[in-house]
Amino acid sequence: MSVSANVNEKLCPSRVVLEHVTSRWGVLVLAALLERSYRFSELRRTVGGVSEKMLAQTLQTLERDGFVHRDAKPVIPPRVDYSLTPLGTEAAEQVWALARWTERRLGDVERARAEYDEARTS
Amino acid sequence: MSVSANVNEKLCPSRVVLEHVTSRWGVLVLAALLERSYRFSELRRTVGGVSEKMLAQTLQTLERDGFVHRDAKPVIPPRVDYSLTPLGTEAAEQVWALARWTERRLGDVERARAEYDEARTS
Repeated sequence: MSVSANVNEKLCPSRVVLEHVTSRWGVLVLAALLERSYRFSELRRTVGGVSEKMLAQTLQTLERDGFVHRDAKPVIPPRVDYSLTPLGTEAAEQVWALARWTERRLGDVERARAEYDEARTS
Repeated sequence: MSVSANVNEKLCPSRVVLEHVTSRWGVLVLAALLERSYRFSELRRTVGGVSEKMLAQTLQTLERDGFVHRDAKPVIPPRVDYSLTPLGTEAAEQVWALARWTERRLGDVERARAEYDEARTS
């Protein structure tokens, strides 16, 4: 149980949760939803490169984990909005910060790679 | 370039960096190294379930990105220590916090899943 949860243990269920939150599309979906709620098609346009199938699967996983709220409005044509729950907001704040940090530090990473490659070819 | 880096763009190189930092083993290796430096075999024992090959590959990727420093000591038998660079420490602090949050919130996630499954089978 959560008292002794440890992501370093191969079989600890917390590792699976960490993998959902940090999955390729999980990160980007959570970070996008931190800014506002989205409809499926809008979200798909925002998160570049995600397929319909992967987005649906990512949203379902995040919904089941209690991070995303799916609100199907009883209107015609059907309208479904996705937003963060309070628990999902906690996760999203962290991955949002990580995404922004990555963008900010891209130049440093590119310099480090150039040095690494240089040291190995000269 | 980094001025306009955007992880939501399919081809933005920042997305690859984000994927390295949030990869299954990348997260756990960075979080472990935040606590102290490790030798390869120690790190492998700490991060449960990682194969030798995946750990070597993860460390090399993180080294090339400028996050991990590899220190090969000129001793017999050879000794290699892995530690975080200042840039890697910035990344590691964030994923460490995310790993601890996941462990802390595991109970909430498990309750959410039970509710989700219950609503779909009753």
